[in-house]
Order: sequence, then C-alpha cells, then structure tokens
Amino acid sequence: MVNETQHTCSTSSSSKSDAGSSSGSESSKDSSRCSTPVLDADRHERLREKMRRRQDSGDKWFSLEFFPPRTANAAVNLISRFDRMGAGGPLFIDVTWHPAGDPGSDKETSSMIIANTAVNYCGLETILHMTCCNQTKDDITGHLQKAKRLGLKNIMALRGDPAGEEWEEEVDGFNYAVDLVKHIRNEFDDYFDICVAGYPKGHPEAESYEADLRHLKEKVFAGADFIITQLFFQSETFLKFMKDCQAIGITCPIIPGIFPIQGYHSLCQLVKLSKLEVPQEIKDVVEPIKDNDAAIRNYGVELAVSMCRELLDSGMVHGLHFYTLNREVATTEVLKRLGIWKEDPRRPLPWAVSAHPKRRVEDVRPIFWASRPKSYIYRTQEWDDFPNGRWGNSSSPAFGELKDYYLFYLKSKSPREELLKMWGEELTGEESVFEVFTCYITGEPNKNGHKVTCMPWNDDPLATETNLLKEQLEKVNRRGILTINSQPNINGKPSTDPIVGWGPSGGYVFQKAYLEFFTSSEIVTALLKVLKKYELRVNYHIVNVKGQNITNAPDLQPNAVTWGIFPGREIIQPTVVDPVSFLSWKDEAFALWIEQWAKLYEEESPSRMIIQYIHDNYYLVNLVDNDFPLENCLWQVVDDTFELLN
Amino acid sequence: MVNETQHTCSTSSSSKSDAGSSSGSESSKDSSRCSTPVLDADRHERLREKMRRRQDSGDKWFSLEFFPPRTANAAVNLISRFDRMGAGGPLFIDVTWHPAGDPGSDKETSSMIIANTAVNYCGLETILHMTCCNQTKDDITGHLQKAKRLGLKNIMALRGDPAGEEWEEEVDGFNYAVDLVKHIRNEFDDYFDICVAGYPKGHPEAESYEADLRHLKEKVFAGADFIITQLFFQSETFLKFMKDCQAIGITCPIIPGIFPIQGYHSLCQLVKLSKLEVPQEIKDVVEPIKDNDAAIRNYGVELAVSMCRELLDSGMVHGLHFYTLNREVATTEVLKRLGIWKEDPRRPLPWAVSAHPKRRVEDVRPIFWASRPKSYIYRTQEWDDFPNGRWGNSSSPAFGELKDYYLFYLKSKSPREELLKMWGEELTGEESVFEVFTCYITGEPNKNGHKVTCMPWNDDPLATETNLLKEQLEKVNRRGILTINSQPNINGKPSTDPIVGWGPSGGYVFQKAYLEFFTSSEIVTALLKVLKKYELRVNYHIVNVKGQNITNAPDLQPNAVTWGIFPGREIIQPTVVDPVSFLSWKDEAFALWIEQWAKLYEEESPSRMIIQYIHDNYYLVNLVDNDFPLENCLWQVVDDTFELLN
Repeated sequence: MVNETQHTCSTSSSSKSDAGSSSGSESSKDSSRCSTPVLDADRHERLREKMRRRQDSGDKWFSLEFFPPRTANAAVNLISRFDRMGAGGPLFIDVTWHPAGDPGSDKETSSMIIANTAVNYCGLETILHMTCCNQTKDDITGHLQKAKRLGLKNIMALRGDPAGEEWEEEVDGFNYAVDLVKHIRNEFDDYFDICVAGYPKGHPEAESYEADLRHLKEKVFAGADFIITQLFFQSETFLKFMKDCQAIGITCPIIPGIFPIQGYHSLCQLVKLSKLEVPQEIKDVVEPIKDNDAAIRNYGVELAVSMCRELLDSGMVHGLHFYTLNREVATTEVLKRLGIWKEDPRRPLPWAVSAHPKRRVEDVRPIFWASRPKSYIYRTQEWDDFPNGRWGNSSSPAFGELKDYYLFYLKSKSPREELLKMWGEELTGEESVFEVFTCYITGEPNKNGHKVTCMPWNDDPLATETNLLKEQLEKVNRRGILTINSQPNINGKPSTDPIVGWGPSGGYVFQKAYLEFFTSSEIVTALLKVLKKYELRVNYHIVNVKGQNITNAPDLQPNAVTWGIFPGREIIQPTVVDPVSFLSWKDEAFALWIEQWAKLYEEESPSRMIIQYIHDNYYLVNLVDNDFPLENCLWQVVDDTFELLN
Repeated sequence: MVNETQHTCSTSSSSKSDAGSSSGSESSKDSSRCSTPVLDADRHERLREKMRRRQDSGDKWFSLEFFPPRTANAAVNLISRFDRMGAGGPLFIDVTWHPAGDPGSDKETSSMIIANTAVNYCGLETILHMTCCNQTKDDITGHLQKAKRLGLKNIMALRGDPAGEEWEEEVDGFNYAVDLVKHIRNEFDDYFDICVAGYPKGHPEAESYEADLRHLKEKVFAGADFIITQLFFQSETFLKFMKDCQAIGITCPIIPGIFPIQGYHSLCQLVKLSKLEVPQEIKDVVEPIKDNDAAIRNYGVELAVSMCRELLDSGMVHGLHFYTLNREVATTEVLKRLGIWKEDPRRPLPWAVSAHPKRRVEDVRPIFWASRPKSYIYRTQEWDDFPNGRWGNSSSPAFGELKDYYLFYLKSKSPREELLKMWGEELTGEESVFEVFTCYITGEPNKNGHKVTCMPWNDDPLATETNLLKEQLEKVNRRGILTINSQPNINGKPSTDPIVGWGPSGGYVFQKAYLEFFTSSEIVTALLKVLKKYELRVNYHIVNVKGQNITNAPDLQPNAVTWGIFPGREIIQPTVVDPVSFLSWKDEAFALWIEQWAKLYEEESPSRMIIQYIHDNYYLVNLVDNDFPLENCLWQVVDDTFELLN
C-alpha cells in the first residue's frame, strides 16, 4: 500500500492565493482532490475501472446473467435471488433484453425495470442488454435515455434475432451490434460502459470464423469496453479464441461465458438457440442419465468447475461470466468450489447501499429504515442530493409518500396464507399481538407450531446484531413493548468485527444503544416519568399516528448513533436518529400495521379491529442512550417503567 | 433541559411528498430545522438574544469597553489584552470611536480595525461605537457598510462631541444619536443590533433630566435594542434612573456603566470630560491619597465592588459594563471579587473560533495552524464558505498568501531584543537550534539564563495538553527532531476534561496522536525505512521547502484527528490532517524560519546562514497514529529511527 508519490510543487504555486480575486471558487488544485471522502473506491469507479483494478491486483472475479421473469410473483423471487447471490460478491450482474416482453417499459417484469431494481434497490453493478435490429433510432435513444435516468451505467450492445425469416439489412438502420455501439458513443459520449458479445466458435451466421473476429474488432474499435463470450464446452475453445483476438489487435478484457449444465431439457434448448454443437464426450455422459436431474446437475457442476479451473490456471482469464438461467444452486456451487464466491461479512456501510450514480456520495441515513432499505431508497429516489458527511446538511428532508406497498420490490416475500400462519389466523386481543412479536424475537414456534420469520417492519429474520439483545428483547415484547428496531452500544470494536463491523479494515466502529418500539399510552405515561431521571443521558422521540410528538431532542438536531474512525479518513457516521425524518417514518411504520397486517383479515372482523386499535392508539417510541462507553441503560429505563406500572 | 414540545402534525402533512415536483428544493419543514448542527448556540445568536437568554437564566454577565490605541505597538498589546480578558467570559466588548484618529480607516490603530480584530481574530462579540455629528450621510453609510463587511454586527450609536464651540443643528444632517439610529434602521434594516447611551444624571447639555429621558425614549423607539449608561458613583443614581426609564415606557435592557477609579489623574480627566460631579465622600477619601496610586486603585476596586453588589442585589441588573481605560488589573479584580469573571477551561471547539457571522458554521480546520489561529483566519478570510461537518466538502482549499508577517495581530508579542535572548544572540551550528527547541519544551532557561517562552511557530508557552508529552518531546528535540505541533491520543475522555475537553458537557472527546516536526534529510531517510513497518497504522506527509512531497495518504483524503461525540448531536470533527492544506502550511512554516528568526541577524552572518541552511535543507514531517485506542506508537517510530541511524 506504499504510495510514495513524489510530486514537486514549487513553493510559489502551492501557496498561490486567489484571495484577491474570488476565492471559494475552484482552484487548480481542486482537480487533484476528491470533494468528498471516499470510503469505498468501488462505489466511485465505473465497471471497466473495477475490472482493471481486479486484474491488476490478481483478484479473480465472477459475474451473473439473469433474464427478466414472466410474472410479478417471479419478479419478487428474482429480487430475493439478487440479494442472496449478491452476497457472494459478483463484480456485476446483467439482465437480458427480451424484445417480446416489452423490455423498455415500466412493467415490473420488463428488462429495464428488473435492471433498475438490481442497481437501485439491490445495489448491484448491472449491465442492461439491448438489441437493435428492427428498432428505430428514436426507440433506441429513448431506451438509453431511460436507462441513464434510472442510474444504469452499462449496456451490452447486441444485434438481437431478426424478426421474420427473410431479414434484410436496413439502410441507415441498426443492422449489427456495431451500429448500436457507434450510436451509443455518438449520442451518450463516454457515459455508458459498453459490452459486446464474442463467439468463440464464430457467430453461426458469420461467413467465417475469421470474418467474425473482424466484426468483433470493429465493435471494439467502435467503442466497446469489454467482451463477454457465448457459452462453450471446452476451455481450449476459449483460449484459442482469446489468442486469435489478441493476434488481430483486440486488447480489451474478454470474459468467458460459463454455462453449468443444469438439466437435459435446458441444455437442448440452449444448444438449439445458440446453434452450438455439444461435444460427443459430453453427449455420451448426458444421454444415459437424461432423466436424472440431480445426476445431470452434479455432472454439470463438475464439468464447469474443471473447465473454469483450466481457464483461471491459464493466466489469461481474470473473471468468469455465468449463465445462471435464473437458478441459484449450480452456479453457487461452482463458485464456491472455485473459491471465488466471497461472502464478505464486512459491509462498506452498515446499510445496503444503492448503486445509482447520484447516490454514490450518500453515506448518512436515518436509522429508522434499517430493515426497510428498499423503502428508504424508494422514498428518496427523487432527491437531487444525498447526505454526505452530515445528515444536517441534507437539503432534502422531504420524503416521497409510500402508498405503493404493492411494489414488487417492497412486497413481502411470503404469501398471505403463510403470513396468517405466522401472525395468527385469529387474534384474540392485544396479547396475541405481543405473542407474535415475542416469537419473532425468540425464533420459537407460535402456539400453532409456526415460526415467525418476518414482521411487517422486517421481511427478514432477526439480524445477527440484534441477537446480542435477544434475551432483553424477549422480556419486553412479552409485556407489550413491541420492538421493531434496536442496536446495542459499541465502544470501539475493530471495523472487521464479523457482527458489528463495517467499512475498510484498520478502523474502529462505535454505536449508541438504540431501541424503537410501539407501545400503549399507559406505558408511555410511565415511561415519561422514568425518563426524567435520565434526562441528559437518554434522547427520546415519542409520537402517535396523529403526529402528537414528545421529544427532548435539542433544536430538532440529528443524533449520530453509528460512526466509524478509519486510517487516513474523515469520520463516517452512517446512521442518525433524525427527529424530522422520524415523522415521515412514523407514517410508514403505522401504515404497515394496516397495509401488511390488518388487511389479512376480513373487514370488521375482531382480528382486524385489534390491529386497527393498536394502530389508532399506540405510540411509536425511540430511545437513544448517549453514554455509549457505559453499560446500555435502556433496559433499565424499561424495567423502571414496568416497575412504576406495577 | 426538558423540552417536551407538543406539536401536532397531521399524518398527511408530515408525509407530504414533493417527490413529484422538484424535490431537493426547500420544503416547508426546512424552516423549522437548522441546516447545520449547532454545537454552541452562542455562535448563532445575536447580541440582544444572548442578553435575553442570560437574563432569563439568571446568569449575570459583564462587558468591557476599550479605546483604540495610539501606536502599532500599543495595538499588539491591546490584542493580547483582548485575548487575556476574553478568557474571563465577557458577553461583549466595545471599541470607542475617535473622530480625531481616522476611526473608519484601515490603519491598525483605527476604531474600525481594532473592532475587526476583536471580532475576527479574538472571537469576541464586539460593539463598534460610531458618532454622527459633523459627518455626512455618505460617510456614515460607508462606515456602516465597511463594518458589516468586516463581520461587525453591533453599533453603539452616539452623537459625539460637536467640533467647534458654536455648534448648530444642521438641517437634514445628523444632529442627535436618534438620527443615527433611524439611519441605521433605514439603510440596514435589522442587520445591526443597536446600542444607545443613557445618562443617569441626564445629559449635561439636556434642558432637564426629564427632557433627557424623553430623548432616550425616542432613541429606543427609533430602533435601539439596549442602553449602556454613562458612569456614575452611587448605585441609587442608576436604580432611580432605571425606574424612571421604565415609568415612561422604556423596556429594553439598561446596562450600568461601571468605572473603577484607577488613579487620581484619570478620575479628574474623566470627570472633566463627562461633566459629572464626584460625590463629596469620594473626594474626601481620594484627595488625601492622590499621590498613592496603589491606595487609590485599592479604594477604587472596593468602591466598585460594593456598588456592583448593590446593583446586582437589587434584582434589576443582569449585566455590568466596565470602562476599562484599556487597563486590566482593576477591572479583572472587581470581576473576580464579584464572582462573574468565569475562566471557563471548556472550549466550544479545540481551536479559537472567530465571531464573523460567515464563519458561524465553521467547525473543521487543519491541525497545522493550531498555534497560529489568527494566521489561519487571515489566510482564509476571503473564503465564502467554511467547512462544516467535513473538511472534504470545503469548496475553498485555496489559502491566501501570507506575506504580511508585520500585521499587528500576527506579530510576535516580544521585541527583537527579547527574541535574541531566547533564540540566541549568536548561533554556532544546528545544535544550538536544537537547544532552543529543547528549552522551549522543557521550560528550563537556556545557557544564558533566559527562558524560551515562544517560538516562531508558537507565540505562547507550551499548551497544557502538550505538557502530557513533555518528556518524550524533550528527548527528540535534543536529537534534531524539531517539534512544532503535537497532540496525544485520547480514547474517549469526558468533554468536560480540563485539559483535552471541549464542546458541551455530557460528551466524549477523542484524538489520534499527532506529531509535526522539522528534521534533516538524513533522519528522513531513516524514518522512511522505519515507517514501512507501520504502513497501515501511521499516515505521514513529508515535504521540503521546494515542495518535494512523500506521503502514504490514500487519495489525498483528510484524516480526522480530533472528534467529539455529544448527546443528541451529529459527530463533530474539528481538526483534520489535510494533505492539500499541508502544502500551504508548509510555505508558512518554512517562511517563519526566515521571517521571524533568520532576519534577527545581520545578512551573511553565520547565525543567519545556519537558519537559512535549515530552511533550505530540512523537511517538514507530520505523523498520525491511526490506532487511537492503543498506546501512541509515534515515539517508537522515532526511537526506531534513531536506532537505525546509530
């Protein structure tokens, strides 16, 4: 990491004053200096730079290809898959373009919207495929503008399959991928990173292998940044192709496309589509076991692993691109066996970042959306600036309304029947609600034997970090302090700590203890009496659905509750308790009672009325213990409250 | 501190989205929210608000009046006095207007420039007096505009003494203070806080006491915010005056002007000027001891203390205004005996803040100017924005040139002869320079018996905090590591800590260990070898006068080295090591060798050549130990370096 830059600045130039003219203006030095601290270079680099950096560091990588789903439910599942497979650390994912599926539309199953979701809500570097044949220039430009607006930065430029048998070149139209590459560079300059397809056996329609190589070179020289290849079955096929590319002057990265055979049927289909020939030795193995899915998949994994090993061992390959067919098991297995699936428990920030370029500097968020990061991203998507360094500096405290609970990336992963099993087919009173919260915390099955693995405020099981507080949380939920968010206090743990760590290594992370819960007005009355004893130590915000708000926060200032100290960097404080945002969160938190829970039941049913009662009468409370070096006092606050009530 | 604000926000209003229109724009909620965290309300309030707040809290205060000095040397002394008397916590100081002394000019002895220095460089809330008679509207407006530009926010509006015996009212001119008050409100709206003078015995030229009260009421109704009175000798005089004011409807604060008798001569002169009569009982005491200065001063202090006690005990008086006559002893003594001199060791920030309104949000500075805050303020005076929250966000990394070493607020307090005694009449080699640095650190006299109480980089004796490092500093300076700035690491001490604390109480402060020094290239070579072992732990910047720069700072990012965590607030990080600013500081730090030290000696003299050699050949080094929770490793780094050299 030694970086001994010897740059000579003459005394006069480095002290040159622009005080006389207009200071505060850009000085020439500004250009050599980032205007905001970079915690994580990855967020600031474009894809081709990331690729280059990985190649330079010798760090092997992988990427994953998906196609857009057919139904809204499948879209919900695909987004969960993005989150799960994103955890393995792909350098990027790509989403194919299905001309038949209205790919540029706002439908939740369109290529455009799936790619948008991957970038913005899953924080994945994403390439959107785009085909050009049979499309007008205006169509294409429109798609590209939309992609740019949504924060997409990478396009895979393809010709696509001509519609109709007797396809003919259009004069001035888009006939080949190279036309699309040129168009993107003409209209969008250097904004997009462009990927093009390479055919290790030559494109099936090309006059010859050599002619196809020349076409590829044209695409690269027209402005493509890297190449992903069609699938192939033998490493030599790729390595020969790569050498041939280099021989004619193609120097950009060429990424082999890997297809782990996952079943007989999909193999046949793909082979038919791609007009590839399956080598005899593979046929010989597959044919006899064609009805044994597990056997074929095992064989496919073996085959892919050994081929990938050959590729990586050749020294010519730095990254592998996987055709997942939207499936998880085989690809994950191959990646794990290759040792390049890297579930890094270390997070760049304590919350899930978005990969939209305009959110690149974002490094502060209110803690309230900790379990609903996609909702937070959605409700702030129209902001022009994102808080960087301080929340207080944010010029955009206005949150978009959240009426769109049906949005596929905000919807519960569980269907209604499952939710009813978890949260109760029939509620008998407030206590049965306490029971649901308690089961969620403990992980124990409810009285009907079902585990509660999600809640309206949290679609995932309890965070590892929250487990640190499990025992106390169980106790308080049982008594009607219905917790929805919490964190323990942390007084300087290494940033590499597997549970609470985040950010680059060599740093120290800190937290103030935080507790957020719904509770009845009786408990709030007692709590307020108790809080007087903790006046300087505990900050609180207490609000009901009507917005009646009780707080001791000085001047409505935000309270930083998570921060990190890193070598050679300014302080990072990624989560704050902001009194103003709390009122927007309050609306969402109360609405989730109705939208996700009450609406499971018939109108006028007792169960629904119980939830409605809680919604109408309970308070949402948050507490911060400012004395992070001492033992968390919030449990004592709650104990004192219960004692006062007894 | 309970602040239970019950404000009802309807659900819809608090979640109102402006996402559809242009978000990032000001929402209605913005107005209820400060855009930046307020660490210290004092910096954000105007004088009349501070006065009101003190009155509400029952916290008694004082203020101090000074007149502009006659000579540049006296100005240097007055500024030191501002710093020393500022330590006692005056609510404000005021600077009188001397029409004969070109009071609005840029001369270092003008009223304007002295007031400017008090506000900007000493960080004192300041009232500038201004008289209006015999001046044109344009003159007055010009003065007021200049005062505003310099950051002055308060004006004491006075008539002034008419020039010439036969003064006559001018039609449309400024004949009375009330004309000036009206003019200020007309031309500058509510920008200035305005103070006017009250005469407890009536103005000597007024037709009657009652007529004078009516004039005072006119001034208040024209827009004055508070009243400071002429001096008086008996508390009843003031208390009667105050009741009479209230009786005719004057409700603004009225601050008694206190004149501690400091000598027979000054008493006579003041009495003559103010046309006041000294009560017989005072005359009876003073006349017999008129040649005994000490006795008169003691009597004056006694008299002032007992009168002030009576005023404060009346319950009608919240603040006391002292006519200091630019002297320190008597006023300080009175204030200490009254118990309202409050040397608060707690600082709002670790560095001396400026009271210029545009610097109000400033809360980050590079550590380099820690001992030269006035130089830092000077070199950044033209900036439009000041770093708030993060240094990296600062849009103004360009520092003004510092050629003006002669500026009276930057000049050494010690005369040339004294500096020569401290730093050596004759230097015999680099070792004699090491000796000077060592004596400064240890506080021991040099071989000629003189203590070294200042250095070119630090006009004051060693900071208490640096004393924590004294032993190690002595050792390294003796061997040619010539330290000019350092701080120990601190891992979470209370913000009220008397040595390293700062900011509001209830917080925790932290520091990374820092060491900055000049040293020879031989030592730098060894140091760089040693630093390889500490690569991830220690950040360094090493630069010579020509700007050859060696660093391991990632991406030229600033490194926060002081930060504080406070209840209900975002993180404050007031000092950073910024690689870019370091190059501007380097110019200043190297120039100080020549400007302050070498120039004490004859040109071509051996002493001068020794300093010149160091200036030309040494490096300026700074080191940060990022592992603040562990024992400071910088001493080990230096020890390893010496060992390598042996």
